[in-house]
Amino acid sequence: MYISGIGRTKFGSLPQTLPELAYEAMYEAIVDSNVDITDIGAIFVSNFLGGPLNGQLHLNSIVASLLPGMNVPIARVETACASSSVALKQALYALGQHDHVLVVGAEKMTAGTVLGPTEAIAMAADRHADQLNGLIFPANYALIAQQYMQKYRIGHEVLEQIALINHRNARLNPLAHFHDKDVTLEMIRRSPVISSPLNLFDCSPLSDGAAAVVLSKEPQGSRDVKILSSQYVTDATSLTQRASLTSFNAVKIAARMAYAESGKGPDDIDLAEVHDCFTISELLALEDLGLCEPGGAAKLVGEGRILRDGDLPVNTDGGLKADGHPIGATGLAQIFEIVVQLRGEAGPRQVAGPNVGMIHNVGGIGGTAAVTILEGSQC
Amino acid sequence: MYISGIGRTKFGSLPQTLPELAYEAMYEAIVDSNVDITDIGAIFVSNFLGGPLNGQLHLNSIVASLLPGMNVPIARVETACASSSVALKQALYALGQHDHVLVVGAEKMTAGTVLGPTEAIAMAADRHADQLNGLIFPANYALIAQQYMQKYRIGHEVLEQIALINHRNARLNPLAHFHDKDVTLEMIRRSPVISSPLNLFDCSPLSDGAAAVVLSKEPQGSRDVKILSSQYVTDATSLTQRASLTSFNAVKIAARMAYAESGKGPDDIDLAEVHDCFTISELLALEDLGLCEPGGAAKLVGEGRILRDGDLPVNTDGGLKADGHPIGATGLAQIFEIVVQLRGEAGPRQVAGPNVGMIHNVGGIGGTAAVTILEGSQC
Repeated sequence: MYISGIGRTKFGSLPQTLPELAYEAMYEAIVDSNVDITDIGAIFVSNFLGGPLNGQLHLNSIVASLLPGMNVPIARVETACASSSVALKQALYALGQHDHVLVVGAEKMTAGTVLGPTEAIAMAADRHADQLNGLIFPANYALIAQQYMQKYRIGHEVLEQIALINHRNARLNPLAHFHDKDVTLEMIRRSPVISSPLNLFDCSPLSDGAAAVVLSKEPQGSRDVKILSSQYVTDATSLTQRASLTSFNAVKIAARMAYAESGKGPDDIDLAEVHDCFTISELLALEDLGLCEPGGAAKLVGEGRILRDGDLPVNTDGGLKADGHPIGATGLAQIFEIVVQLRGEAGPRQVAGPNVGMIHNVGGIGGTAAVTILEGSQC
Repeated sequence: MYISGIGRTKFGSLPQTLPELAYEAMYEAIVDSNVDITDIGAIFVSNFLGGPLNGQLHLNSIVASLLPGMNVPIARVETACASSSVALKQALYALGQHDHVLVVGAEKMTAGTVLGPTEAIAMAADRHADQLNGLIFPANYALIAQQYMQKYRIGHEVLEQIALINHRNARLNPLAHFHDKDVTLEMIRRSPVISSPLNLFDCSPLSDGAAAVVLSKEPQGSRDVKILSSQYVTDATSLTQRASLTSFNAVKIAARMAYAESGKGPDDIDLAEVHDCFTISELLALEDLGLCEPGGAAKLVGEGRILRDGDLPVNTDGGLKADGHPIGATGLAQIFEIVVQLRGEAGPRQVAGPNVGMIHNVGGIGGTAAVTILEGSQC
C-alpha cells in the first residue's frame, strides 16, 4: 500500500473555515497524485473539535457537500490528537476493497464559535477523573515533566533545547505556523509559566490547518512512498489509571507492533516525526519508540543527534511545537513531512538520503498511540 | 462475517453515565456470544454528541479505561445519526485482520452538561447553510413532510398511523423508551405542533442508551446471524444542495449496493428496521429502499402490511419513534432487533419465521445513509 499523493495548507491562525481548509488539502493531495478524483473509492475525515469549537459535526457529509454528486462512502474518525493516524489506518483497511482512498484531516481552532479552546481540548481527558478536577492538558503534561525531570535528573534547559530546535526547523518550512518567527533561547527562557515546570514555549500552539493523503493499493509513480506498517492501540485515558508517568505503554506496544510488521528495527529509522504537543512529550516519544534507552533522550538531544544533520533527525518540519498542531490534521501533517523527505523534495530542510521514516502520533495523555513506518522508493 | 453476540441497555432517560452505558452494552454482547473478551482484536465506538453534550471526546480511550490492560486498537466513528452503522462497516473491514471485533454505540442525551440538545443535534446540519438560518432538525423534516404530503396528496393521518404502529410495537419491547406508555390515536392527534406539519408525536425522543455487537469472521454457534451486506454512502449535508426533498439519493445508492452485494432483492426482505427519526422519514425510507414505488408508502401503511403480522413488518421494536433514539447507538439497536427476530427470540413481538432482514440508518437529513442486510442461520 502506497501514499500516492500528499497535500496540506499552511498552519496558523487562518481566515478559512473548516470545510475550506479540508477542501484545500484534498485538492492539493489529488493534484500531487497521479490519481483522478473520480477513482477515489472512499474518503476518511479526521477531526477532533468540529462540534465543540465550530458547531459542525457530521463532517463526512460536509466533505460530501464539497464534492457534489460523488456519493462515495465517507466516514469521520475521532481519537483526540491521534485522529488522523487512526483515520489513516481505517483507510488502509478500506483499501482492501478500493484501488484508491483519500484521507483528510482538518481543524479550525482559532475563532472558535461555540466553546473556548481550553474547555474543548480538555474533552480528550477523562471527564470525571481529570476535567472536573481541573486537570487540563498543560497540567497533565506538567505532572509528567515533574516526574521525568526528577527521575532522570535533568533540568528545564533540555526542554528549552527541544523548543529551540523545533523553532529553527520551522524557519525552513514555509507552511509552518511559526515560519516567520525568529525564536531565540532568551525568548524561550523568559516565556511565562503555564503549568510549572512548563512554560509557554514548552507548549504547542492552537493552529488552523488541514492535511490530506491519497492512498493507493498499487504504486502510481516513482514519487510514491510505501507504507510498511500503520498500527495504533489504546490505553486508559487518565493518568490516575497508569502505572508510570514517564512512559506511555500504548506507544511502546504500537511501536513493537509496527517494527514487527515492517521488519524494521530502531536502527533502520532514518528520521522521525514525533508528537511534541509539549516539549516533554518529545523525550518520552524517543524512549517509548525504542530510539534510545529509557532516560536517554536528553543525551540524544544534547549531542545534537536529532538535528537535521544528526544521525536521527526529528521533527524537521518544526514539530507540533513550531509547525503547529491543528489537531485533526496533525498526524497527516507528520506523514506529509516524512513523505516530502523520503521523496527528496524538502528543499533547504532536506535530510541526506533517508530511506525509512517513522511517525509517532498520540491522543490525549497517551490514551491513543499510533506508529507508522514509511519507506521511500529511492532505496 | 457473522454477528455472534448482541447486547443493549434499556433506552430512555437513564441514571447511567455515557461510559457506564457503553460498558453495560459491551458486557451483554460478550456474554451473549461464545467469544471470550480476550479474543476481541479491535473495538469500534460510535457516538455522536459526547463532546457537545457530555464534555467527553476521545471515547475510544474512555472505552479502553473500562478494559484495563487490554490495549487493543479502538477507534471512534461519528457520522451523526448513522454513526453506529458506519462504525459497523469499519469493524467489518477490520475483521479482515482479526477473528473477532466488537462494536459499541452509546449516547447520553438527557442531563447534558455542556450545551442544550437542540443546539447540539443541529451540529449534524450544515453550519452555514442550515444552522445559522434556524433550520434545526424538526424544521428540515417539516419541509420534507410539506413537500411529500403535497406531491403525493396524503394527509397527516398517515403520519399518525406510523406513530401509532410504532408505539404499539414498543409496548411489546421491554427495553423501549416508551414501553410503559399507552399511546392512543387521540393523544397523537392532540399533540402540540413542533414544526408544521409535524407534531410532537411525529418526532423521536431524546434518549440515553447503548447497544453493542460482537462480529466474528467464522460462525460461533447456531444463533449467529450472517451479514450479507453492509454499505454506506454520503451526500451533501444541506437540503439546499439537493435535487429532491421527497427522496434521499444516498439511501437509494446504498440500497442498490446492498442488494447487489447480498444477491437479495426487495422481495426477499422479510422485515425491516427503518430510520424513523420523524414519522415522515419512514415513508421516504420504504420508497428509497425499493420496498414500494415512489409515493406508494402510504398505501403500505394503510393496508397494514408493515404491522407485525403483515407481509413486511417494519420497526417491530418500536422504531426510533418509540423504542428511542440514543443517536450513537441507534443503528446497532436496529441491528439488535433484526438479530433477535432472525434468531426467533423476540417473544411476544416475534415475527413468523423471518429469514432476511434489512436495516436502514440515516445521518442528518440524508447526508449519510447506511443499509445492512442480515440473514438468519435458520433458513
